[in-house]
Amino acid sequence: MAEKRQRAALETLSGILKCGKDELYFTSCGSESVNTAIRGYLHANPRAGKHIISTRTEHKASLETLQLLEESGYEVTYLSVGADGRPDLEQLEKSIRPDTALITMTHVNNESGAICPVSEINEIRRRKNPQTRFHLDCVQSLGKLPVFLSQMGIDMASFSGHKIHAVKGIGLLYVRKGCRIHPLIYGGGQQNGIRSGTESTFLSGALALALSLAEKDRESALSRVTILKKELLDGLSDLHVAALSPDDALPYVVNLSFPLFEAETMLHALEEHDIFVSTVSACSSKQKKISYVLLEMGIDRNIAKNAVRISFSRFSTEEEVKVMCGAVHEIYDKYTVKRG
Amino acid sequence: MAEKRQRAALETLSGILKCGKDELYFTSCGSESVNTAIRGYLHANPRAGKHIISTRTEHKASLETLQLLEESGYEVTYLSVGADGRPDLEQLEKSIRPDTALITMTHVNNESGAICPVSEINEIRRRKNPQTRFHLDCVQSLGKLPVFLSQMGIDMASFSGHKIHAVKGIGLLYVRKGCRIHPLIYGGGQQNGIRSGTESTFLSGALALALSLAEKDRESALSRVTILKKELLDGLSDLHVAALSPDDALPYVVNLSFPLFEAETMLHALEEHDIFVSTVSACSSKQKKISYVLLEMGIDRNIAKNAVRISFSRFSTEEEVKVMCGAVHEIYDKYTVKRG
Repeated sequence: MAEKRQRAALETLSGILKCGKDELYFTSCGSESVNTAIRGYLHANPRAGKHIISTRTEHKASLETLQLLEESGYEVTYLSVGADGRPDLEQLEKSIRPDTALITMTHVNNESGAICPVSEINEIRRRKNPQTRFHLDCVQSLGKLPVFLSQMGIDMASFSGHKIHAVKGIGLLYVRKGCRIHPLIYGGGQQNGIRSGTESTFLSGALALALSLAEKDRESALSRVTILKKELLDGLSDLHVAALSPDDALPYVVNLSFPLFEAETMLHALEEHDIFVSTVSACSSKQKKISYVLLEMGIDRNIAKNAVRISFSRFSTEEEVKVMCGAVHEIYDKYTVKRG
Repeated sequence: MAEKRQRAALETLSGILKCGKDELYFTSCGSESVNTAIRGYLHANPRAGKHIISTRTEHKASLETLQLLEESGYEVTYLSVGADGRPDLEQLEKSIRPDTALITMTHVNNESGAICPVSEINEIRRRKNPQTRFHLDCVQSLGKLPVFLSQMGIDMASFSGHKIHAVKGIGLLYVRKGCRIHPLIYGGGQQNGIRSGTESTFLSGALALALSLAEKDRESALSRVTILKKELLDGLSDLHVAALSPDDALPYVVNLSFPLFEAETMLHALEEHDIFVSTVSACSSKQKKISYVLLEMGIDRNIAKNAVRISFSRFSTEEEVKVMCGAVHEIYDKYTVKRG
């Protein structure tokens, strides 16, 4: 029964993600997937080299893992990132060496929405060192962009369930057939020994259902959210708000810097209107006040410190955008009156 | 809101387990807890020594982790285990060295029900090397025996939610204040950096609720299940069934060897009566047919190969025991007739 349900979930997921059922592994979260992919590949392939290429705009799950690896003898080249949030591809070209074991990048940046030029990176990788493996953190792109794994030329990918409205506590890891990794969690040998621990068919079923629903609506949701982003920017244009997300970013993430308001102030003011935005990534909110992602993109510290991240979902509506714009204007009015 | 729920779950759990709220960490399963405890402690304390003491009757989560550590330069002493399922304490006395970093044992064995002599082990440890840390796998004892962490003299403990009827996908790790470990999963620094990854308040709440309910009923359930075990053994006594679980084992696990029937045969015959038992641990069922736990306890291979594991829960009833005994007798009758 449990086995049957697990197979059904894998069937659904592999169908949507266009990969083999035996190329997917359930984990507990995106962070576990990222940790397993990066460390698991390097540990299983010590002869692949001690060099890794990434950027400093990755999620902490990657950055902390890379730091750990640096401490244990790996060398990491962090590519520069432009104001468009994209890694410097010329630098990538120069950085790939015979001992470059791994490139790890994020498909869609969680703070800026910038989309990774996956095929360009792949083309350079194939030309310079086809043995270099490529891991993509797809936590933000899942269900929002096409993620057709077998067509992307990547070797590993990490996913999280709750970003597509599944319950928290489930993640997914893709490892292309032929790419060998070591597990992070050892034990009873479940999931072909790649991830031990009793499988939760409840959680894997939730993920499969959530992805089915997201996938069905994916294209039309993207069109809708593209319009919502435009309406949001139009509705705030008179306030000279700076849109920090690149123009060609995934519209689900809109990073805005409000003149006059520090991020925390705006966040709390919006909370009073029952509008919940974030400043830096929730996953590193306790550590730093100013987004390291924005600073890395070359955005001025004074602008970055006022940056607020607005996240759309496929359930977001025009009405909500109007309420948001109205609330921001009220906050500005209130603030101006008090000052006057 | 989420933070409040997480704190409430920790409050409940630490109250029942008698430890600090800041000594508990949520994981995804018992295996993750065990991996984190053992590897996390050793990696964080390289000067504690390269020697570990355990037994060969541990769960695979421990055994596979120990094997990994052996491959990376650690030495493991596996204590002999008696027919009572307990480790040889004289051997323990002789084995503890100045460089013994860790003892790792199981509170209640998942296949035999044998209970670990925790206080005796502690007494020897304190006398021989008080710097040696002690990890206890409490997956099977949680909610069934008193597990009052601060009174047990242990440094780390691992737990799983679904063994006490929480949903699958949640585990717990106890690390005594002052005992330093490294995380297994790196990232956003959640849970004081010991376990990164977005917390699932849904799952942690489920665990807290499940433990509250189990704890409330713990003592009376133990009395009831003790009687059920006796009734089961009495009801099968005419069939010359061998009880492989020690007499003083936790009665929730009853390991029986049926003469004439190989374990798989009995398992499938019982399935036809809608009775679900197991042979070896489900967590290693794909790897071996005969229980390594029973063999390690010195049980003859011919007896061990017929061993079936019957698990009670606090919801088990006398009626179910009667049905079980009736079914086994029917199976014996059917088998005898066919032979006759």
